[in-house]
Formats: sequence, C-alpha cells, structure tokens
Amino acid sequence: MSDVTDILTDYSKDVKKLIEDHLSTIVPEELYESSIYLTEAGGKMLRPALTLLSAQAVGGKKEDALKTAGALELIHTFSLIHDDIMDDDDMRRGKPSVHMVWGEPLAILAGDTLFSKAFELVISSKDDNCPPEHVAEALRVVADSCVKICEGQASDMGFEGNFDVSEDEYLEMIFKKTGALIAGACEAGAIMGGADEKTIAAMYEYGKAIGLAFQIQDDYLDVMSDEADLGKPVGSDIVEGKMTLMVVKALSEADENDKKVLLDILADPNSPQDDVDKAIEIFNKYGSIQYAYDVAQANVNKAKEILEILDDSESKDALIMLADFVIDRIN
Amino acid sequence: MSDVTDILTDYSKDVKKLIEDHLSTIVPEELYESSIYLTEAGGKMLRPALTLLSAQAVGGKKEDALKTAGALELIHTFSLIHDDIMDDDDMRRGKPSVHMVWGEPLAILAGDTLFSKAFELVISSKDDNCPPEHVAEALRVVADSCVKICEGQASDMGFEGNFDVSEDEYLEMIFKKTGALIAGACEAGAIMGGADEKTIAAMYEYGKAIGLAFQIQDDYLDVMSDEADLGKPVGSDIVEGKMTLMVVKALSEADENDKKVLLDILADPNSPQDDVDKAIEIFNKYGSIQYAYDVAQANVNKAKEILEILDDSESKDALIMLADFVIDRIN
Repeated sequence: MSDVTDILTDYSKDVKKLIEDHLSTIVPEELYESSIYLTEAGGKMLRPALTLLSAQAVGGKKEDALKTAGALELIHTFSLIHDDIMDDDDMRRGKPSVHMVWGEPLAILAGDTLFSKAFELVISSKDDNCPPEHVAEALRVVADSCVKICEGQASDMGFEGNFDVSEDEYLEMIFKKTGALIAGACEAGAIMGGADEKTIAAMYEYGKAIGLAFQIQDDYLDVMSDEADLGKPVGSDIVEGKMTLMVVKALSEADENDKKVLLDILADPNSPQDDVDKAIEIFNKYGSIQYAYDVAQANVNKAKEILEILDDSESKDALIMLADFVIDRIN
Repeated sequence: MSDVTDILTDYSKDVKKLIEDHLSTIVPEELYESSIYLTEAGGKMLRPALTLLSAQAVGGKKEDALKTAGALELIHTFSLIHDDIMDDDDMRRGKPSVHMVWGEPLAILAGDTLFSKAFELVISSKDDNCPPEHVAEALRVVADSCVKICEGQASDMGFEGNFDVSEDEYLEMIFKKTGALIAGACEAGAIMGGADEKTIAAMYEYGKAIGLAFQIQDDYLDVMSDEADLGKPVGSDIVEGKMTLMVVKALSEADENDKKVLLDILADPNSPQDDVDKAIEIFNKYGSIQYAYDVAQANVNKAKEILEILDDSESKDALIMLADFVIDRIN
C-alpha cells in the first residue's frame, strides 16, 4: 500500500483536471485567472480525497463522487480566498494571496464564482446518471457545510480580542470553521457511493473527528514545529493573538498572575521572541500543549474506531492512514 | 385586477416571512443581524414575485415555487451586499449599506451566508414533495445565474475607465449582471410550476427581455427623472463615469470633438452640474436618450409577445403588467 502523500497525489490529479475543465469557461480573463489561481498554486486536496475514498470505502464507485469531490475543493478554495481578505493574510500556498494580486473587489468575486461553480458541479453529477436523490442529498450537505463555515468564521472574528471563551465554544467554532467541510466531504462521498443512512452518519462523524484533530494539530504545530517545516516563524499564532485550544486551556487553569502575563502577550501585536517563549512556558506549566495533543489524538482514535463499521478494503485502510496523517504531519 | 404595487406587496409578504424564518437560525448574533438587515430594510421583491407568477402562469401552484422564490431574493440580496463593497457604495435601500454598519469582513460573510442559505432553501423544497427533478433543475438555474452575476460584475469593473466598449459587449454585460437572475427567476418558477421545456425556455426569454429593459431604464431614469423621485441627483451615472447604453451609443455616433468632451466629463469624478448638462446635451444631439428608451421599450414588447404562449390567467395578466412596469416606473 502506498503512503498518504501518494494517495493524495494520485487522487488530486483527476480532481485538478476536472476543476481546470470546469473553470475554463469563466470570462472575462481576469475573473478566470483569479478563480483558477489557488488551484494552480497547489494544495493538499485533502477534502476531495476524503470524498472519493469515502465513496469507495462504502462500496461505491469513485467516478460517481468525482464531481462532488471537485465541488468540495472549490468550496474550500472559495473560503480561503474570502478568509484571506477578512483576516488580511498576504500569503497563501507560498504565493501572494488572491486579493494581493488582483485587489479585494476581484478577490471577492473570484470567491463568489468558485462558490457558484461548486454547486454547478455537484448538480452536473445528474448527467453521469447518478440518482437524483443522491445529488440532492449531496447538495444539501454542501450547502449546510457552507453555512457552518460562515458561522465559524464569524465566531472566530467575534473571539478576536476577547479571550473569555470556553473550551466548548472554542471547539464548536473550529468544528464549524474547519471540521464541517471535512465532515461534509466524507458524508457527501458516502452519499454518492450509495451508502445506507447509518453508514452515511458514521462517515460524517469520522470526518468531524479528523477535522477537529486537524485544526487542533495546526495550533499545536505552531508552537512545537520549527520554522523550516512550518514555513512561518514558530509562535505566529501567539504574536497574532489567535485563540487556540492551548490558550483556552491555559487561561482556564492559570493563576491570576500567569493569566495576566499571557493575556498581555496575546494583546500585543508586536510581541518579541522573549514574550513568545514566555507564553509557551505558561502553556507548558499548565499542561496545555500536551492537552491539545491529547485531544487531537483522542479524535484520531475516535475516527479510526468509527471506521470499524466498514468492510475491509484498500480505501478503508487509506482512510485510517489519513486519520493518522492528520496529526503525524509536520506542517 | 390590482395594480403592480399591490401584486408585489401581496407576494412579498409570504416571501419575507419565509426568509425571516429561514435566516432565524443563523449564529452568532452579528452574522444574523447583518444577514437579515437588507430584507428588513425593504425592497421591491421583484424576483420572487416573478418566480411565483411564472409558476402560476404555467398552471402550477404558488406553494411549490415559494422556497425557490425566497432563494432568488436571497441571491439578489447577497449580490447587493458584495457589490456595495466592491463599488464602495455607502447607501442601500435608504440605509447605510451592510459594510458601512458592520465593516467589510462581516459584510463579505453575510453575503456568503445568504448565498449558502439560498441553496439550502431551494433544496428544502424536496420536503414539500416537489419532484426531485424539478428541484435539481431549479438549483441548476440558480447556480447558473450566480455564475453569470459574477461574470457580469467582473466585466462591469473591467469596463471602468475604458469606454471602448461595443453595444453588444455592453448588452452582454448587463444581461449577465442584472438580466440573468431575473431570467432565472422566471425560468425557475416555470420549472417548479411543472411547465414543459418549450414553456420553460419561453419564460426564461421573457425574464431576459424584462431584465434588459429594467437595467436600460435604470440608465435612462438617471438623466430623465428628477432628484425627488430618484432619491439621488440627476446625472449621478455621468459624474461616476458609469458605462450606460446612452454613453455607448453617443460614443459610437459622436464626432471627434463631442466624443472628447464627453470622455473628459466621464473621466472627471467631480464634474460640476454644467458638465452633466453638457453630457446630456451630447446624448440628445446623437439621439442616445431616445435610443435607450426605444431599446428598453422593444424589450418590453418582446417580453409581452413571448407571453402569448401561455393560456389566459390572472397571473399572465400580472406578468404583462410587470413588463410594462419595468419602464413605466419613475424610480
């Protein structure tokens, strides 16, 4: 069996080709260029791989889920473009972000276009003789994920500068912002693969668990990886004052003094390295880093247990490997 | 039979109630408030009325098209929110636009949320026992309209400061930006009403014709109405250097001198009233204002002719009245 990178590379080829074909009709030229840009810049294509593997793992055909898989990648890309505008992030996938190249108005439009094209793509599954009930259900999943992404992003923005957030509130936010689309990718794949209701629900839960693990691992890597692997300085989240599971945990456990020190560092957008180190020290003092790792690991374990509902297959093995990959990755 | 305003008021009540219910689950509070804002601010609700009337005029039930009608209004509202950000428009429906109240990031998100909720709403027609093929077809129409709206807006932005645009290019742009959603509203209504393919295609063409007439009349009113009716100064489009059918026509007919005068006025974002009057004089000299009116009128006539395919009914009469209303309105 190949390793995770091979699986992702293998599946991403078909999806990328499909997306390129599907976006090729966009006019005018500037809208086309700005819409296709992030797909050409590369990306892990984790979501479409999950859709295709889920379809196969429930006994369905990869081909029946291909357009839905492409749509989920388009939705992901749309959300990256709009998030980068909202969060004022200049770089994405190692290149200047869309609004840095074409300006905000066209970046908003490129996102909207990908959003529209995503729905068009799922709908066109009808032309492949997929049952209309499957197509309608997959559309419901995609639309529902999109609502959650928006709600999660709004909560995340609402948390800015406000660290009075419970662990449940934080987990709900990252579920919506990151987990819902990953859960939707697995659920939609199972639907297009013709699974029964119980299996569809299980695949959704699998996706939800690895989605949570994925986001928490992102937070964890920010302090535990190194700059070369991360592609950005260690502790960037601390400098940016970003809410993470480690922050939530430390703030709920720390004494008044440590709490004040941590909040001051998080509030300072120009924290020097000394302060970043001090924040990490506080995380460690209250076991927050280990705690975040444990929560991510628990979600990966849960995800793998859920898969026991499936018959053995290469696709099932790949889904198990992807669950491990979510927290074994170094960037 | 009641007049057009009564028809719109009558239909808009059900649609507004449906939209309010459908958006009521949005969290957090700020996202909900910014998403519902423009619906509460009022609006003609022309698109949902067209959807409902089209469904009835082809012999279907209003109820079967209600969710699709609501979705079209949500798509329209989403596009207004994002357009106002892109075009830097501060006011909408007599109130500060969404990004002026909540800032650009949340306004982008509110638009995205309405977009997602629109698709959710069409999909939920399934729960009303609408045939899945109708729902899927209506979704295709909505997604296709959204792609065209984005393309039209991108073309419009591309035209800025570039007046070397042919009449065909201009008409294609306004069809995509304004006409496509109106055409889609009529087409989707006919689909949900259970019409045959020929009638569905006719309703699309009816919508396309009144959509074009609507936009051209907007341009026409900018110079032919008065400030009290318009709610903004006469000639605003000229001051803003906006491309209109009158500009396209005048530039294609004018001698070199008049062309230069007109282009200079359009290029100046602070044109005084004298210059606005001079531009209108040039429009008149080359018959551009009458030409725009004639093109709008021809489209209204075409729209009414297309309706001859339908059996006589109150809904058909209302669609005829709406076609006339598009160019009889004063604002």
